[in-house]
Amino acid sequence: MALDVTASGLFPIAPTPFLPDGRIDDASVATLMERYLAAGATGVTVLGIMGEAPKLEPEESLDIAARFVTGMAGLPVIVGVSAPGFAAMRSLSRAVMDKGAAGVMIAPVPSLRTDDQILTYYRQAIEAIGDDIPFVIQDYPLTLTVQMTPKVIRQIVQDHPSCVMLKHEDWPGLEKISTLRGFQKDGSMRPISILTGNGGLFLDFEMERGADGAMTGYAFPEMLADVVRLQKAGQRDAAHDLFDAHLPLLRYEQQQGVGLAVRKYVLMRRGFIGSDAQRKPGGVLGAAARAEVDYLLSRLARTDPRANI
Amino acid sequence: MALDVTASGLFPIAPTPFLPDGRIDDASVATLMERYLAAGATGVTVLGIMGEAPKLEPEESLDIAARFVTGMAGLPVIVGVSAPGFAAMRSLSRAVMDKGAAGVMIAPVPSLRTDDQILTYYRQAIEAIGDDIPFVIQDYPLTLTVQMTPKVIRQIVQDHPSCVMLKHEDWPGLEKISTLRGFQKDGSMRPISILTGNGGLFLDFEMERGADGAMTGYAFPEMLADVVRLQKAGQRDAAHDLFDAHLPLLRYEQQQGVGLAVRKYVLMRRGFIGSDAQRKPGGVLGAAARAEVDYLLSRLARTDPRANI
Amino acid sequence: MALDVTASGLFPIAPTPFLPDGRIDDASVATLMERYLAAGATGVTVLGIMGEAPKLEPEESLDIAARFVTGMAGLPVIVGVSAPGFAAMRSLSRAVMDKGAAGVMIAPVPSLRTDDQILTYYRQAIEAIGDDIPFVIQDYPLTLTVQMTPKVIRQIVQDHPSCVMLKHEDWPGLEKISTLRGFQKDGSMRPISILTGNGGLFLDFEMERGADGAMTGYAFPEMLADVVRLQKAGQRDAAHDLFDAHLPLLRYEQQQGVGLAVRKYVLMRRGFIGSDAQRKPGGVLGAAARAEVDYLLSRLARTDPRANI
Amino acid sequence: MALDVTASGLFPIAPTPFLPDGRIDDASVATLMERYLAAGATGVTVLGIMGEAPKLEPEESLDIAARFVTGMAGLPVIVGVSAPGFAAMRSLSRAVMDKGAAGVMIAPVPSLRTDDQILTYYRQAIEAIGDDIPFVIQDYPLTLTVQMTPKVIRQIVQDHPSCVMLKHEDWPGLEKISTLRGFQKDGSMRPISILTGNGGLFLDFEMERGADGAMTGYAFPEMLADVVRLQKAGQRDAAHDLFDAHLPLLRYEQQQGVGLAVRKYVLMRRGFIGSDAQRKPGGVLGAAARAEVDYLLSRLARTDPRANI
Repeated sequence: MALDVTASGLFPIAPTPFLPDGRIDDASVATLMERYLAAGATGVTVLGIMGEAPKLEPEESLDIAARFVTGMAGLPVIVGVSAPGFAAMRSLSRAVMDKGAAGVMIAPVPSLRTDDQILTYYRQAIEAIGDDIPFVIQDYPLTLTVQMTPKVIRQIVQDHPSCVMLKHEDWPGLEKISTLRGFQKDGSMRPISILTGNGGLFLDFEMERGADGAMTGYAFPEMLADVVRLQKAGQRDAAHDLFDAHLPLLRYEQQQGVGLAVRKYVLMRRGFIGSDAQRKPGGVLGAAARAEVDYLLSRLARTDPRANI
Repeated sequence: MALDVTASGLFPIAPTPFLPDGRIDDASVATLMERYLAAGATGVTVLGIMGEAPKLEPEESLDIAARFVTGMAGLPVIVGVSAPGFAAMRSLSRAVMDKGAAGVMIAPVPSLRTDDQILTYYRQAIEAIGDDIPFVIQDYPLTLTVQMTPKVIRQIVQDHPSCVMLKHEDWPGLEKISTLRGFQKDGSMRPISILTGNGGLFLDFEMERGADGAMTGYAFPEMLADVVRLQKAGQRDAAHDLFDAHLPLLRYEQQQGVGLAVRKYVLMRRGFIGSDAQRKPGGVLGAAARAEVDYLLSRLARTDPRANI
Repeated sequence: MALDVTASGLFPIAPTPFLPDGRIDDASVATLMERYLAAGATGVTVLGIMGEAPKLEPEESLDIAARFVTGMAGLPVIVGVSAPGFAAMRSLSRAVMDKGAAGVMIAPVPSLRTDDQILTYYRQAIEAIGDDIPFVIQDYPLTLTVQMTPKVIRQIVQDHPSCVMLKHEDWPGLEKISTLRGFQKDGSMRPISILTGNGGLFLDFEMERGADGAMTGYAFPEMLADVVRLQKAGQRDAAHDLFDAHLPLLRYEQQQGVGLAVRKYVLMRRGFIGSDAQRKPGGVLGAAARAEVDYLLSRLARTDPRANI
Repeated sequence: MALDVTASGLFPIAPTPFLPDGRIDDASVATLMERYLAAGATGVTVLGIMGEAPKLEPEESLDIAARFVTGMAGLPVIVGVSAPGFAAMRSLSRAVMDKGAAGVMIAPVPSLRTDDQILTYYRQAIEAIGDDIPFVIQDYPLTLTVQMTPKVIRQIVQDHPSCVMLKHEDWPGLEKISTLRGFQKDGSMRPISILTGNGGLFLDFEMERGADGAMTGYAFPEMLADVVRLQKAGQRDAAHDLFDAHLPLLRYEQQQGVGLAVRKYVLMRRGFIGSDAQRKPGGVLGAAARAEVDYLLSRLARTDPRANI
């Protein structure tokens, strides 16, 4: 099934589970998928920035993508194919689509500066992968240093019918959602799906501004799915109550650089993965940090029993 | 009174209050100081990044600094003197110290990259302002793009006896505090004061890692002072309870670029300042954002009556 | 006399001459102006990046500007007014225009990224200084990290009637000149003056692409004036012959960071200024580098007797 | 044969020749090697930044490397293996060494800032590829934005016995060569080979400062080899005479972004390669630029008959 503009709900950004010796942990991949399905995921994204993609051999990347396609019960699988060169991007894109992926996600290379450079980059990328593959724009200035204005995003959407989704993780980013939805209302941009990332730090209000859901890897995907669902059901206060209870931990996980170590540690404690090992080079969580996360979990467990581990 | 390494508690980063027509709002300066004193401030910092310093004429800057020295009941006033050139830095530093400031704060210029460049910059800065002025290192990579390792900070401290404080706002930054306090323990660095910024986003744990207090401008300085006090008193859970109640709003205020607009809006609603006007060019808070802040205040008011406005 | 779009020829970027003790060298300011006039300058630019402007006190800046206005025989004086804040930009702009400057030059702040940010910045700057002051856009990505496309420059020109000139120092930059002149031909941009900088490294071809002259500080301003004159007279080969003879030295001077030390050293050896001192912090030319420059001068003297010193 | 610290002379940075339809031009690869050998090359470097490496499929990269190993008459072949992830770096390094490469070249990833980050990166890279592969540090701040001080380079050299060479292309960079050779003299760093890049823009003086040769891709490799040879023979004036004759063209070729188009155009006109095609996305040389290059060639031909084409 191909990804299209109606995508919504929760697409977790899947980490790649490793054994302590660095090999891929196949059993944990299976467990992870079960848990995502149980949590209410409506899709999944693999080989993203937080998936340690650059540490994988090409055949490993392809294998991971294929396993998720098989295991996610028919839900759409988006594969991150960002690469410094278009040859690698094309190869991986064609290969994962052959395996059954629903679409690919493309981040701009960090050297892009002007609006024209960004537009040219996406034109060349689509020329390379082909205009028959549904793709997602990843807009993540904090990490990528590339700033896309709403007008630039609109131009990419209008230029490329195969663009079906924005992974929104600009910060601050609430006005950007409103502006893009405004473009749809005034007819200057066709509708697209907007899923938000950035660790979920503003998911509460992003839903109110018009997001269709979340695409991020917070270690409690159930909470993300619940907030999306509650907001869509108009239960604003309940959505914020749940979100606020998680915010202390979520904020702790959403630290650049060490965030993945926190996330894997919590996922391990929750039984989603067998080990919090990262393939080298990876961040390591010190004893003080682990104790802080444990404390945050214990506090969270007072209101959300899922944190009682 | 000169600033020294024993400084602790809360040093609010003071915004500069403007009238809607762009003139400085003298009455609000007075109110602001009263409120800071009532909130438990142990000092104040003026002309920082969030104080709109680059929009002030030189005489205005000097006047603002002088008013705070006079009005803060003898508490130490730190003045931001960061400038693209050392001539301006020297002039402002000497002038504000003549007016009674307790010390100055110096951020590195954004072009610095290597450890040596950073060390050279501080050496030249201190040569310019004189080694008799107590100074604060501002370590704010997110905005300044300059990354100082703990070793570089230690070297600055050891090279310059007039360095008395670190304004810590690296992100992530908890390990940095632990490392610096470790340097003190192993005798390789003399003690300094560490006050933390970054909007207060990790103040809860920063205190546990060894910070002496907060230097940031969150619109509820009482909360910052309370968390510092509770943590020093060993009341960990109470500190976190209070902090967590504020985190949804604090996170909203701690958005790059629009944060000052949020902060001034809340300070205005709380009566700390008469208007949320920024001197041009300034961020403007749209109707949706104002409504979101109002909603966050109403939610906060359920547990902290100070938000009941 | 106000600067207008007909400006052409050579506007040297004037260094600020200092005595070895750091004071401004008034006598050398006078000599410098004589030499510029003798070299065929048609104007001059002061307080640019290579004028050590950030090391000057505000009153010194104003004094330097006033001295050039008085001493340049009625030729237009452009004053660099780039500043981190609009308050300082406005003050200096109004003050130097009162002293008789012909216009001001404004570089974008390094944090600007998107086209919209750049356009907004210039709109705010012109709002601050007033739309009655002729201004020059400085387009220098190598140092400023801001990339302005031809379309963005065109928009600034069209939005602001007081924009009269582009200081072009993009690299590579030849196509940019052609594109901008193409905009004039197709009627989408009104004519402006284009003077080129970047140390003069491509002046030979920049004139052929449509530049009106040079605005840079190479230590042989006579050569710059001659190349401009020869190219305008259609003496292409002669222009390139002269340019090529200077290129080994010009290239040596056009090194980021140490370039000013080279330039001042040659200007001193040529008697344009009394000392090559820079105000602190400044680059220092080591013995090996001085010997290299001397060698390059001796080689140049074989074909250009002006280098025989 | 393994690369070692005695490497010197000329290692051209080989472009990858393409047919107009984008396939690799095997015939031109063969011609290119013949010409390099005839020009006096003492080795060659493939898959560098100017070799369009990111546009190649993994098997193509390996094939190119293997062809050069076979065709360069036993001279050492260095292979660029820089990659965003260590998995790809390791795979390519092991594979090309198996094919007979003499060593690999590693550039730092652009996100590195502090000295410690750079040292850690090289430690992890060597851990990944193995400490049995001779490697070259690529120091190219202009493109990579990573600034390595001489002290950092010394530390890498001292930490890793398999480090045998520095590809020096800092700008300005003359003092850096002197400083590194000074480290060797004072015994704080073991000897390494230093070959200089940056298009050759300062090769004349780099040799005098202690470089062992050139590693760059200027379209007249004979000139580079001659300058290296003349300088080693003590024929300073002759070296500079030859260099200066080429400088106008060399400077034109050494423009960021369009440089490769210029280089391939000249190589094509000289019969080194059959087409100046770049694989997409690639720079295109406009008519005006081609005419400028032709003009520069005709001028160069007056003193260097090799340009008479």
